[in-house]
Order: sequence, then C-alpha cells, then structure tokens
Amino acid sequence: MRVVTALGGNALLRRGEPLTAGNQRRNVKIACEALAPIADKHDLVISHGNGPQVGLLALQGAAYKPDEVYPLDILDAETEGMIGYLIEQELGNLVPEERHCATILTQIEVDPKDPAFKHPSKPIGPIYSEAEAERLRQERGWSIAPDGEHYRRVVPSPRPQKIFELSVIELLVGQGVIVICAGGGGIPTVSLAGGAIMGVDAVIDKDLASSLLAKDLKAEALIMLTDVEAVQKDWGKPQARAIRRISPEALKSFSFAEGSMGPKVEAAMEFVEQSGGIAGIGKLKDAGAILEGKTGTLVDRNATEVVWWD
Amino acid sequence: MRVVTALGGNALLRRGEPLTAGNQRRNVKIACEALAPIADKHDLVISHGNGPQVGLLALQGAAYKPDEVYPLDILDAETEGMIGYLIEQELGNLVPEERHCATILTQIEVDPKDPAFKHPSKPIGPIYSEAEAERLRQERGWSIAPDGEHYRRVVPSPRPQKIFELSVIELLVGQGVIVICAGGGGIPTVSLAGGAIMGVDAVIDKDLASSLLAKDLKAEALIMLTDVEAVQKDWGKPQARAIRRISPEALKSFSFAEGSMGPKVEAAMEFVEQSGGIAGIGKLKDAGAILEGKTGTLVDRNATEVVWWD
Repeated sequence: MRVVTALGGNALLRRGEPLTAGNQRRNVKIACEALAPIADKHDLVISHGNGPQVGLLALQGAAYKPDEVYPLDILDAETEGMIGYLIEQELGNLVPEERHCATILTQIEVDPKDPAFKHPSKPIGPIYSEAEAERLRQERGWSIAPDGEHYRRVVPSPRPQKIFELSVIELLVGQGVIVICAGGGGIPTVSLAGGAIMGVDAVIDKDLASSLLAKDLKAEALIMLTDVEAVQKDWGKPQARAIRRISPEALKSFSFAEGSMGPKVEAAMEFVEQSGGIAGIGKLKDAGAILEGKTGTLVDRNATEVVWWD
Repeated sequence: MRVVTALGGNALLRRGEPLTAGNQRRNVKIACEALAPIADKHDLVISHGNGPQVGLLALQGAAYKPDEVYPLDILDAETEGMIGYLIEQELGNLVPEERHCATILTQIEVDPKDPAFKHPSKPIGPIYSEAEAERLRQERGWSIAPDGEHYRRVVPSPRPQKIFELSVIELLVGQGVIVICAGGGGIPTVSLAGGAIMGVDAVIDKDLASSLLAKDLKAEALIMLTDVEAVQKDWGKPQARAIRRISPEALKSFSFAEGSMGPKVEAAMEFVEQSGGIAGIGKLKDAGAILEGKTGTLVDRNATEVVWWD
C-alpha cells in the first residue's frame, strides 16, 4: 500500500514548549517511532507542517536585521531543510539500512488571484498576549488573529494547485525510497508570463498540500497526524462525539473550526472523493493504529453510516 | 557526459555585498545562466557552498535568543533548503520544462576523530574588525582567524567520508534529472555505536564534498566555480602565472593558500587521480568555457607538461 502521512507542526512541537533544537529533535524522534512500523509494511511518503518553525525563522531574521527579513517562500525552504533533515536522520536510524530515505525540496503552484492573499488566516510563530500582538501589528505591519485565548501572526494561505517535483517524488517512491516532501505545505510559487515561476510570500496549508500529493501519487491512504484523538462533531460542546468511520458525504454535513480541524477535514474529503482511498486523522503516536481503524477517525467512501467512538 | 559543478559561497555573494534575499537571488540567477548551457548538453549535478549563509543564520539565531542558537548541522540543513530552492527555481526557469530539477538534502559522514574538530579553520559569516572579532570570541566562545585584512569566525571542517543519499542521487541523475545536492558540503554526521548516525557541529568543505560526489557518481568532469579566473602559481607575487592545463602530479609540487585555493586544488587532484576524469577551476560566468578548456585551469591526467595562460 502507498501511504502519505502529514505531521502537524504542533505534533512536532508541544504547545508552550520552547522551539529549541533539542526539543525539535526529541519530538521528531517520537514521530519517527510512530512512522517506522508503517514504513516497514508500506511505501511511505511524509509531509510536515512548519507553522512554529517558519515563525521562528522570521523572528530570528527580524531580531538581527529588521529591514532584511526574508520572504516566506525562502523561510519555507529553510524549514524544509531543517525539519526534513531531522525526520530523515531520525527515521533513517529506525529503518533497515538498505531502506533509503530522501528529502525532496518541493515547490507548489498557487493562484496569484487566490482570495487568501487578501485574507491572511494561517497562524505562524509563537502565541502573544493581546498587547504584544497589537504592538507587533503596528511595528511590523503583521496581520494578527486570535488563537484560543491568545493571539498569533497570520499569513496568506493560498490553495495548492500543482506540485512541481511530482515526477521526481513518484520515481523515488516507485523504487521503495521513503520520501519526505511538501514540507510546510510546499514552497508557494506563481507562474509568470513566459512560463517561469517565482516564489510568493505565503505558507500553504500542509494538509491540503498532502491531500493533493496523495491524490497525485495515487496513494491508497492519507493519514493526518496531530494532537487530538479523533475528529469530533460539536467539538467543545457537551454533546461532542468522536467519529470513528464516516463517508465524505456525511462529513460534509458537519461544520468544523477554520483554523485547526477545518483544513484536515477538507483535505480528507477531497482526497477520498477524488481518489477512492481512505483518509485518517488522529494522534501522532497512533499512526499505525489509525491506518488499521483501531483508533482515530477514518473517512471512507464505503462507510454507509456514521460509526462513533464511545 | 556527467558533470558535477560546485558553486562557491563567494560566487553566490560578492565580497562586501549585504546578504539580502534579493542579492542572493540575483547572484543565483547569474550562476544559473552560466549553468543552463551545460545542462543543455550534459547530465548535471550542482553542489554549492554556504559559508556566508550559515554564518548569517547563526547570527540571526543569536540575535533572537543567544542561549538557543542551533548547532551547525541544523543550520547547514536550513541553507541546503534556502540555496537549493533559489538554484532549483532559477535554473528551472532556464531549462526546457520537460527537464526536471530536484534538490536532495544530503548528509555526509565524517570521522569523529578528525583533527579538524580540534583545529577550526573554515570561515563562516561576515568579516569583522580585530576589535569586533575579539569581543565575539570572548562573548560567544567563537574561534576567530584572520581573513585577508579582516577577521572571520572559523568552525571545524572535517573531511567528507561517505555520502548517505548517494544511491538516491545516482537514481535521479541516471534519469536525466538535474540534481542539486551536497549543499554547503553536506550535513556532517558521525556514526554511533549500533549503526545510528547523528549530526555534528561543523561545516564540510564543499569542494572536497563535491570531489567525493563526482568520484562516487563516476562523473567525467568536476568544475569548481569561484571568483578567480584560474589557478595561479605564486599567487600575489610578481612572478605569478596562471595555469591552463596541468597533471595532478605537477600540481602537487606547487603550494596553495589553505583557506581559499587550497581545498579546490586538493579536491581537483583527488578527483582526477582517483577517477580519471578532468577537473576545472575558474570563474562562475565561464562554467561552459572551463569545461572546454577555453579559460580557467584544467587538471588532467593526460597533461604531459604544464601549459600556462599568458
């Protein structure tokens, strides 16, 4: 089976934890311990988020030379190197030596007219108090949005349209290489007149990018790994119920928070509707069990009724 | 023909120029205009330096949180993403659409007992005055060494021993993909007991890494691109003469500066002696002409006498 797994930026960094090199490596190692058993049985492609990391690099740049902060396409590329390296090294240490891993820099085309450019919504970097956030909005011209009880910087998050390195990724996956790609949702680029491409100042949602990747690679499964057990209907309310198995049609009739579960549910529905594969959502440590339907939420065209956990 | 080209960090950033995103992109574009004609005729593999860039990332990190500066293996990985991205995008805009480019994150094994760990010699980051350099040495514990009239931070630069992603690179090059890899000389790693690998705080010389890469890939040519026209015997002296064509044996009898031309000459000799291919050294803009022997220095086993430019 060909499996695409998407690691949440939050799964790679626990809430409130400082983004040190040591913390990142420890969390990546835990993630890789969950992925290694999947690699043992299946062809595996790994994508990952970069919200906390790309925000950190922007802050580092601003602290050094506020007038020379790099645009997000370049910072996205830096995070593909950094996080890809940690995943490749830690996972490489867990799989048999003859099983090769490769991290492929990934550029993804977006539409320059995507409405997201006018409505920044993707949170990056650390959380701020209301007063700090307001100061940063004024000093740096950032867009700011609430995130739970706190505030975060938000940036444009256009929809992924086309993966430029697809044929290279396909070639390697076909040879049994474990491929780490589309990191941070891929580097957003737009097509210019004459066919050239150019990076843009944005961050693509990694779940939507992973859904496109899974579809294009004709994967049988897409697993999105985060810090919640399963998708819940009426999340946070007394009547909340965790979904075990559901069809994309039934899932479409529910509504989910835009910032967190929304893109995962959308990515799952898109992949399942367009490919016929299954999509799973759940906790990072449960990766293997989600794929087998033993925990988490599975979106499956063949689900004739909603099955609940309780 | 299979050609490995190594782009000098200095070729990607002119001396004294601020390391802004715009300057980097402009210089990378110039480099890619020199490489595109080679890609048109040959299989092409591109490596690159990262001295200025890895130094910048260390400074950005220190400016934000001095106690949480990332080790050089992680910063190396970030520069492989950043510079690889710029090269892949700019070169991709110049070659036909059906010619694929891929940037492969590259880890390279070094010997933990390499004497370089005790004798840091590789300059990274910007130039400093003597007073600034002394302050940084005391405040941050950096090793500092003279660089022309100025001073720079120096870090350990162990010799590259083994390229972990070699089979993946070989697979792609064999399919005609233009591969960007071993950026910044590759990410230095050491083997631990039990077979696992782990990154170390160092920067590998990109010319020595490129020489190993060219040898392992059985390339016919290795071209090292920098900001000087050709290798000179007695450089900086009145009797200086530029070398046009020379055998590795003849080259061995001359001596070169450790910091700049030394590693290039050593890398060229190693590759030519061990592989039978040719090695060229010269200016970035002359890449194609160096390969044809029309400018720059060619190291060639078949050179029976030293041929000079004059």
